[in-house]
Amino acid sequence: MDYHRVFTQAIDRLHAEGRYRVFIDILRNKGSFPNARCFAGHNGPKPITVWCSNDYLAMGQHPKVIAAMEDALHDVGAGSGGTRNIGGNTHYHVDLEAELADLHDKEGALIFTSGYVSNDATLSTLAKILPGCVVFSDELNHASMIAGIRNSGCEKQVFRHNDLEHLEELLAAADPDVPKLIAFESVYSMDGDVAPIHAICDLADKYNALTYLDEVHAVGMYGARGGGISERDDAAHRLTIIEGTLGKAFGVMGGYIAADQMIIDVIRSYAPGFIFTTSLSPVLVAGVLAAVRHLKQSSEERDGQQAAAQCLKDMFADAGLPVMPSTTHIVPLMVGDPIRAKKISDILLAEYGVYVQPINYPTVPRGLERLRFTPGPSHTEEMMRELTGALVEIWGRLELRKAA
Amino acid sequence: MDYHRVFTQAIDRLHAEGRYRVFIDILRNKGSFPNARCFAGHNGPKPITVWCSNDYLAMGQHPKVIAAMEDALHDVGAGSGGTRNIGGNTHYHVDLEAELADLHDKEGALIFTSGYVSNDATLSTLAKILPGCVVFSDELNHASMIAGIRNSGCEKQVFRHNDLEHLEELLAAADPDVPKLIAFESVYSMDGDVAPIHAICDLADKYNALTYLDEVHAVGMYGARGGGISERDDAAHRLTIIEGTLGKAFGVMGGYIAADQMIIDVIRSYAPGFIFTTSLSPVLVAGVLAAVRHLKQSSEERDGQQAAAQCLKDMFADAGLPVMPSTTHIVPLMVGDPIRAKKISDILLAEYGVYVQPINYPTVPRGLERLRFTPGPSHTEEMMRELTGALVEIWGRLELRKAA
Ligand SMILES: Cc1ncc(COP(=O)(O)O)c(C=O)c1O
Ligand SMILES: Cc1ncc(COP(=O)(O)O)c(C=O)c1O
Repeated sequence: MDYHRVFTQAIDRLHAEGRYRVFIDILRNKGSFPNARCFAGHNGPKPITVWCSNDYLAMGQHPKVIAAMEDALHDVGAGSGGTRNIGGNTHYHVDLEAELADLHDKEGALIFTSGYVSNDATLSTLAKILPGCVVFSDELNHASMIAGIRNSGCEKQVFRHNDLEHLEELLAAADPDVPKLIAFESVYSMDGDVAPIHAICDLADKYNALTYLDEVHAVGMYGARGGGISERDDAAHRLTIIEGTLGKAFGVMGGYIAADQMIIDVIRSYAPGFIFTTSLSPVLVAGVLAAVRHLKQSSEERDGQQAAAQCLKDMFADAGLPVMPSTTHIVPLMVGDPIRAKKISDILLAEYGVYVQPINYPTVPRGLERLRFTPGPSHTEEMMRELTGALVEIWGRLELRKAA
Repeated sequence: MDYHRVFTQAIDRLHAEGRYRVFIDILRNKGSFPNARCFAGHNGPKPITVWCSNDYLAMGQHPKVIAAMEDALHDVGAGSGGTRNIGGNTHYHVDLEAELADLHDKEGALIFTSGYVSNDATLSTLAKILPGCVVFSDELNHASMIAGIRNSGCEKQVFRHNDLEHLEELLAAADPDVPKLIAFESVYSMDGDVAPIHAICDLADKYNALTYLDEVHAVGMYGARGGGISERDDAAHRLTIIEGTLGKAFGVMGGYIAADQMIIDVIRSYAPGFIFTTSLSPVLVAGVLAAVRHLKQSSEERDGQQAAAQCLKDMFADAGLPVMPSTTHIVPLMVGDPIRAKKISDILLAEYGVYVQPINYPTVPRGLERLRFTPGPSHTEEMMRELTGALVEIWGRLELRKAA
């Protein structure tokens, strides 16, 4: 058994497919987002503009968030020092769970160390607790949901993306007496399309299934108070569990679920991924509390983001760039090849000071590699014009296909 | 299918066994650890002394750590805004990985959002990449290692706790040509005993197995620079992978592995739990950097902790309390019953302002429920005398068994 050979082969495969990842080394400049400094391959840090951050509303730099974190740091210190059960349940955690429950109009909420962990821990535990459970999973569901479903060990049925007929076909074919769970997302983050939540809940009602909605790319950004697409569409009360992240529009880090108190209590009591880990730092929790409270009251950031996204989509379309048909704040540009996508990204960074990461397999299917732009309230029209100009130049230089 | 009934039954089982968990709601007082405030069940916050924190060396309150976090907060903001690959790779992350690699004398290191995730993601990915891999796992391994091994889907062989003969028996019985991985901990956190690292590495050499050591309860606390038991015993170079947390002795939050560059690259490139999640907040990473650097140079905290632990063990033993034979900083007191353990803990909190969490199943096996004290450099002899007196009084009141 030659371990080194196996490991070398695993890495060689990535190089051969052109999808070996090199992390770009940056620091953001607080107070002047989307500006940042890039460290790799230059003499000293080089100024760049970030176009691929998931700090969608720049809340990670909001004065209220920074102030709340500074206060917590000086009041209680850096970490929680324990799991939620053993010394790590701070008053900030209790407050944030109440705030998140209220955001989604649910009885309770539960915080995890990340959105990934909230999906993995909740889905694996829920499906395990329900004997014989079958999970119906959208084919484009995020890796963390796939992990949770897989780790539950229960039967999985994959339905075609947002395809209600296919979902119903699968539900109808299943044993009426076994527990069922439909797992899906609201905003799909790589395409920017949205799930038909009410129609999926109709099917859940008809076939007596529970529903699990990942709102990671929607919380803070949709609905009058930032409750996500389920708030915008007035569907929150129909969903069994709503899951979100604290690391994207809320600007910090962490994840959560919101649901009936009984379900919260079951996950709290049975999920190893919740129980056996140091709880989220109170400093982070304090920052999230400020972000959630602010976005419940203020729609300025949401409006600015929507306007910026529409503006960039229009500019790309007018310039003949192959912008994909997103109905949300996400602006994906199809390339269809991992090596070209990386090449465009490299030129943008080296020659234009523009940072946008190429998105390749396994984040998107092979052949659908793309660039994914996330304009926010702080990206100006001037920045967008420069970006569009740069892309048009590169598209010509590399003789890439334009929009049909 | 009545979902509500299944959930209710799940919760009822916990109540029936006396192990339904109620989280105590606290805030630590920065600068005066182990003092804290308790919120539940009183009129306003009540002062308490914390005896069960895993912020073992009070680094979560160290001025250097607080200052580093404050600087980062003002320099770059609250969160990273992305996964390591997409915008979330900050210069702090790069620096910390270099610092941790150096701590363990390894070529590379990789940061995860928690110690739990580092175990789960690394073990599940590693064992999956090695075709036909068999994992040999100590029976007392932590839930996060058990999850990782389980999620890898590979064959698992459990050896009796720290039992070299049993481990060798299992290794000898396995096919010599299949990949093998021995997974174990250095300090077992609920008993306070230590693994024979060299002897396990001898077996790994003999049977061509990789080794994975969880040093979560040792990093920062053992070895001249805080490199853990593997540094103290001069065994780091013999281990394939060393895993640690940033949330206990380093006082903040997060987890990591250290290993050869090739293995780091494999996990970095293939582990979904590393790839598909927002990276650790740069504020936390900055704090950990300060903690790790400080503990590389200063042994004062380690010495203070060892002295406090010895002092408390002696006081407990002299008072006839059933202290377990720990050889480390962990001071467990055997109770052997979940309801009594909770009762003692409740009295300590309500009448003495002492917070120590009862440890029950599934954290320890049923019948071995206990109280677990973690004295540190900031717990004074006076505090220890008061604690011992309180326990003696309660032991008498509840007519509990004394030490043999
Ligand atoms: C749909 C979806 N769910 C969950 C996650 C995980 O959230 P987090 O970054 O907080 O771990 C992500 C992205 O990271 C995501 O895109
Ligand atoms: C042995 C062991 N490994 C791993 C972990 C998980 O580390 P973290 O709290 O950083 O998730 C813990 C405790 O939490 C532990 O006791």
